[in-house]
Amino acid sequence: MGRIVVEVMPKPEILDPQGKAVAGALPRLGLEQFTGVRQGKRFELSVEGEVTDELLAAARQAAETALSNPIIEDVVGVYDADGAR
Amino acid sequence: MGRIVVEVMPKPEILDPQGKAVAGALPRLGLEQFTGVRQGKRFELSVEGEVTDELLAAARQAAETALSNPIIEDVVGVYDADGAR
Repeated sequence: MGRIVVEVMPKPEILDPQGKAVAGALPRLGLEQFTGVRQGKRFELSVEGEVTDELLAAARQAAETALSNPIIEDVVGVYDADGAR
Repeated sequence: MGRIVVEVMPKPEILDPQGKAVAGALPRLGLEQFTGVRQGKRFELSVEGEVTDELLAAARQAAETALSNPIIEDVVGVYDADGAR
């Protein structure tokens, strides 16, 4: 069984309150090294058999429609979980 | 400025209602190729300068504490966004 990873992040110009909340919490845990945090989504789509170019194309279509909101989010990655990026 | 990616997914034995909802929606969009969907989180942590081993260790600590709930989630990746995985 193959798996395709889809990565979705808020667009840079969009406020990201979840990321901001995490960024505010880290120093309270003693982690002062980070200047910013953005929070997005990571999906794993399972497919029967091997990941083919056709399946990657279908995953890209899913990413642009069901998995992200193109007004506020960018699809930053679609790749075979078991292959090279 | 460097960026560290942290990937968090629900543990395999944990129900994932968001993923299930996406899996149910895809066939209605004509995408019948996918046998399952899991939805997790993807964080980008910004750091000043280059990503060092020390910063990656701090990011791993952040991942296990602030960015994930170890009861229900696994940290599946912590890596330099601009380097090899």
